Amino acid sequence: MKYPNNIKKSYKKEINYKNRGMDLESLINDACKYYLEHDLAIIYKKPTPIGVVDVDYKNGAVINKAYFKEPSTLDYNGIYKGKYIEFDAKECQSKTSFPLSNIHDHQIKHIDNIIRHGGIAFLIIGMNGGYYLFKGSDLLHFIHTNSRKSIPYSVILELGIPLKLNYNIGIDYLKGIDIAYKGVGYFENTKD
Amino acid sequence: MKYPNNIKKSYKKEINYKNRGMDLESLINDACKYYLEHDLAIIYKKPTPIGVVDVDYKNGAVINKAYFKEPSTLDYNGIYKGKYIEFDAKECQSKTSFPLSNIHDHQIKHIDNIIRHGGIAFLIIGMNGGYYLFKGSDLLHFIHTNSRKSIPYSVILELGIPLKLNYNIGIDYLKGIDIAYKGVGYFENTKD
Repeated sequence: MKYPNNIKKSYKKEINYKNRGMDLESLINDACKYYLEHDLAIIYKKPTPIGVVDVDYKNGAVINKAYFKEPSTLDYNGIYKGKYIEFDAKECQSKTSFPLSNIHDHQIKHIDNIIRHGGIAFLIIGMNGGYYLFKGSDLLHFIHTNSRKSIPYSVILELGIPLKLNYNIGIDYLKGIDIAYKGVGYFENTKD
Repeated sequence: MKYPNNIKKSYKKEINYKNRGMDLESLINDACKYYLEHDLAIIYKKPTPIGVVDVDYKNGAVINKAYFKEPSTLDYNGIYKGKYIEFDAKECQSKTSFPLSNIHDHQIKHIDNIIRHGGIAFLIIGMNGGYYLFKGSDLLHFIHTNSRKSIPYSVILELGIPLKLNYNIGIDYLKGIDIAYKGVGYFENTKD
């Protein structure tokens, strides 16, 4: 397949594992890169929403003043086996429960929207040294049936899909998606 | 349906048409907002990718230095009738042809990726006072079979789906998607 101007595939072919970040976001970014390189899924982290106040065009468009905006969607989205995927990564410091204040109200509404329109939305929660795929539908159900402002660790262990840390990939969340959504018929028409 | 903390739907219920921007991007942003409010599709403009160099945390995280990065994906993405959608808006000044230099090499590779994974990717081209949905597959085919560095206006008229400007919506591109992708079986299992 030819591209104009002799495009070279400029995706990095190797991840520098020695200096790799071991925080949740880095491990997910590594996985996104791996999946892209191996043509398994096309999932990107969205740019952080920033409000630009002042730009100096004299020096080649340098931004002199800007501020971080509150996101109303989730951080990562893309396509996997023909399905729309969106998720957020949340590192949890508490050992006993995951505070719902981690998720903005707009994001909860957005998760509901995605699911109703046939997409897949979830959180990847890092907690007590483990990583869990927590389905958006389980999150909404918990919120609608509880007055609690945090999800107990026991509930995350019960409903979450444990995600493995793979040395070559990072956090191998596609395997988690396969497990979490296979049973509900999302991928019945797709080849593995 | 209840959300925590008494979430109010804060989407603007009315667009101020008097002051509405008539440029292509504003007209598409209006449509995204309309579709979201009317629960027809969940499509957002991605934040502009910005590289943050310096942040002053003393004054509430004010960004003092940053720069615009080159995008490797398209500007808008989301979900419509269960399908992954991604597109870019391109206003064309030339009356005779659409320069392919408008699209970065990474974006062309990305369009190819999206299509191969079962998503829908296209451009909305504003040209000679009209708006056209130009399918990603037609774009790739043109690039792979031509040595030209621009798409003649006649080709855009021939292959593009004309998009109507609707006073209440903006550019009604969902109708264009229905027309462009209905025939190839994308939506055969969905209800209109």
